[in-house]
Amino acid sequence: MTAATDVVVIGAGLAGLAAASRLVDAGAEVVVLEARERVGGRTLTLPAADGTPIDHGGQWIGPTQDRIAALADRVGVTTYASYEHGLNTEFRDGRAHRFDGQLPDGSDPVSAVAMGQAIRELDAMAARVPLEAPWTAADALVWDSQTVETWLQDRVSAERARNWLRAVIRGTLAAEARDLSLLHTLFVIRSAGGIAPLIATAGGAQERRFHGGAQTISIRLAESLGERVVLGAPAEVVRHGESGVVVEAGGRAVAAGRAILAVPPAIAGRIGYRPAMPGWRNQLTQRVPMGSVIKVHALYDEPFWRREGLSGLAVSDNGPVRIVYDNSPEDGSPGVLVGFIEGQQARTWARRNRADRRAGILACLTDYFGERAGRPRELLERSWADEEYSGGCYAGYFPPGVWTSFGQALREPIGRLHWAGTETATVWTSYMEGAVQSGERAADEVLAAS
Amino acid sequence: MTAATDVVVIGAGLAGLAAASRLVDAGAEVVVLEARERVGGRTLTLPAADGTPIDHGGQWIGPTQDRIAALADRVGVTTYASYEHGLNTEFRDGRAHRFDGQLPDGSDPVSAVAMGQAIRELDAMAARVPLEAPWTAADALVWDSQTVETWLQDRVSAERARNWLRAVIRGTLAAEARDLSLLHTLFVIRSAGGIAPLIATAGGAQERRFHGGAQTISIRLAESLGERVVLGAPAEVVRHGESGVVVEAGGRAVAAGRAILAVPPAIAGRIGYRPAMPGWRNQLTQRVPMGSVIKVHALYDEPFWRREGLSGLAVSDNGPVRIVYDNSPEDGSPGVLVGFIEGQQARTWARRNRADRRAGILACLTDYFGERAGRPRELLERSWADEEYSGGCYAGYFPPGVWTSFGQALREPIGRLHWAGTETATVWTSYMEGAVQSGERAADEVLAAS
Repeated sequence: MTAATDVVVIGAGLAGLAAASRLVDAGAEVVVLEARERVGGRTLTLPAADGTPIDHGGQWIGPTQDRIAALADRVGVTTYASYEHGLNTEFRDGRAHRFDGQLPDGSDPVSAVAMGQAIRELDAMAARVPLEAPWTAADALVWDSQTVETWLQDRVSAERARNWLRAVIRGTLAAEARDLSLLHTLFVIRSAGGIAPLIATAGGAQERRFHGGAQTISIRLAESLGERVVLGAPAEVVRHGESGVVVEAGGRAVAAGRAILAVPPAIAGRIGYRPAMPGWRNQLTQRVPMGSVIKVHALYDEPFWRREGLSGLAVSDNGPVRIVYDNSPEDGSPGVLVGFIEGQQARTWARRNRADRRAGILACLTDYFGERAGRPRELLERSWADEEYSGGCYAGYFPPGVWTSFGQALREPIGRLHWAGTETATVWTSYMEGAVQSGERAADEVLAAS
Repeated sequence: MTAATDVVVIGAGLAGLAAASRLVDAGAEVVVLEARERVGGRTLTLPAADGTPIDHGGQWIGPTQDRIAALADRVGVTTYASYEHGLNTEFRDGRAHRFDGQLPDGSDPVSAVAMGQAIRELDAMAARVPLEAPWTAADALVWDSQTVETWLQDRVSAERARNWLRAVIRGTLAAEARDLSLLHTLFVIRSAGGIAPLIATAGGAQERRFHGGAQTISIRLAESLGERVVLGAPAEVVRHGESGVVVEAGGRAVAAGRAILAVPPAIAGRIGYRPAMPGWRNQLTQRVPMGSVIKVHALYDEPFWRREGLSGLAVSDNGPVRIVYDNSPEDGSPGVLVGFIEGQQARTWARRNRADRRAGILACLTDYFGERAGRPRELLERSWADEEYSGGCYAGYFPPGVWTSFGQALREPIGRLHWAGTETATVWTSYMEGAVQSGERAADEVLAAS
């Protein structure tokens, strides 16, 4: 029962499918093994009760994310602008404040100055991180020896500014400032082109959404790959040597010249290798944990907040849901709010029972948008840490000490094994764009080696 | 081919064997599944060319390590005092300085005062860490938000004192100060009873050694367990539910009422679970990486350094091997030096070729003990990161943010699955003593639940 091919790709997320498509374009034979019964990895679009496609995973696309845009274009998936008219909401000290623009602190000059200064300083440091090799930055060891929390406490004097930056980091990496290496965070900022592109809706990472949902791209790519994509085939053992690779997956075996492992480092570490991985690769996979996020959708008959002059964007200092966006379909029917439970909140609330968690979520929505927000016709939640083959979202992150000790192990092929996944990207790492770049880069490696 | 038993234990290291022995004593039926073709886990004793037993893994026992002492006693493994007569060596700024006592900096009052002060401060903070639940310390979040490196830079003014403390931490956890949560390090200190017991030979963790080598304890325990111990059986899938557990391992299946997983968290994370682990347990296993160490032994016809009035203990600020002990057998024949390549040095030197590494090791030994040290009759090395089923040594450690977010997940049973391994211990965690405590505690959990 051994199938033979040129390249076996493990993982049918965007990275794996982008790699496979590029290889097929170049005339290679490819088999893609996917553990789940679906493609798309950390993108997942499911219909709500009324059929509205809901993106439970990655969903946004913005300027400079050219590779995912091209891929979507190729399979005929179009985009529309995220809704962002009206006032934003900041919930703080027990009440909702409405504000215009991106920064809630315009009314508080001390915090606004501190925030602007911190952003400029982070951007300036980030500009000094070489994207191909963050560990070679002149200050790499200094930055990798401290958490972002330490940096915030040392460098940002205003508590509100610190809290706002903690929220930005949580919103970007689904981890706490105390979990993260400063060097890693600077690398992520640099890979996106700065803090402004990370946080902005128009002009930034949250600018547009995909008609039919982001997973549609992967589904159509998989359709075009046809029988090359095998579902329900979790890679268990990867045998590799000078003559080729054999992957054992759910009772199948696929022999190939080379393999691309298009899964996060933490998940790659759970596969068995014969021979075993060298220690430096083994230890890397122990050190890049996945972020913690529960994504929540509340559906209403209409986006009632819009008529009240509100954008649906809320940031909060309290409760499980600390960031909310209007996530209605393009025609505004039904009204949909998406809330993110991230970092420590995700870790705490995942352990409570469903009823408590729903009550906590609805209390947040009520605080931000009034009583009506507390009575959605449907409330959906997705905890990515529970997904065995993702292990968390949005991506793997680097705690202190990991980039400078193990950065070299991240993309370096081991014999005939090549590594993809958004964690290995140099642009928009942890985003869909990074996934596509990583898959295309791994495909190019394989093509160059063949 | 399904065998049935009361309790299946995964891992025949000290934790698993201690658990199994306790269960058998209580009248339970037990099967122990071990991935390797040997027992002992992170203890491993192999004969040198002349037959001298060499401990490539854990090796020392000291005061207050009563459980491992009792276990050794039970199987008739006796101990002898580590050699520590004569002057110690500090290699610094390119030359070897000899000194008496534990601290090399007696001659430098500023550093000595800074060191003493730092030790007192660390011990005082450690005393406030509750061993059962480090995350409940009053200052847990502050301590878990920073690396030990950050603390050293903030609190220890003298560079030599900082370097010495970095070396102590590296020697204890095989990781760099920048890798470690301050809270975790305080927990380890508290679990050992303070810094002094951690670093001391006489009166401390390095006081005595086992005749025949530390692995002998596991080998004899396994002999007493007989056919209950199955080698070459790596657990692949653990099926668990209300009625029991079935472990699939290397073509075998073992059904049991309960399971004890006596492996480090990172290794437990590489086993498949059906149903999958809840997200909080899944994410814990992504966040407790194993330390990095290459243990080196150099054998000589005799312990020539003793005749020169040297103890064989060396600490160094340079090269791959930064700590050395006299590791000769009790009768002093042959002479054996053991060197530790730890943390960043282990990560760097593991990637070099064997000839370069040997040259680097011998250059260190020559620097510390003269030309003769550079010409051993045998040179042995063991890189624990390369061991698939350990993933590193001495133990899993906690980067910032992990104890406070995931500490609760460390020992909490999941249905019929119980967790052991020195990482789950509350005394002498990361030591053999902790392994035994953890195994006995897990066995007690199972017995109480039955």
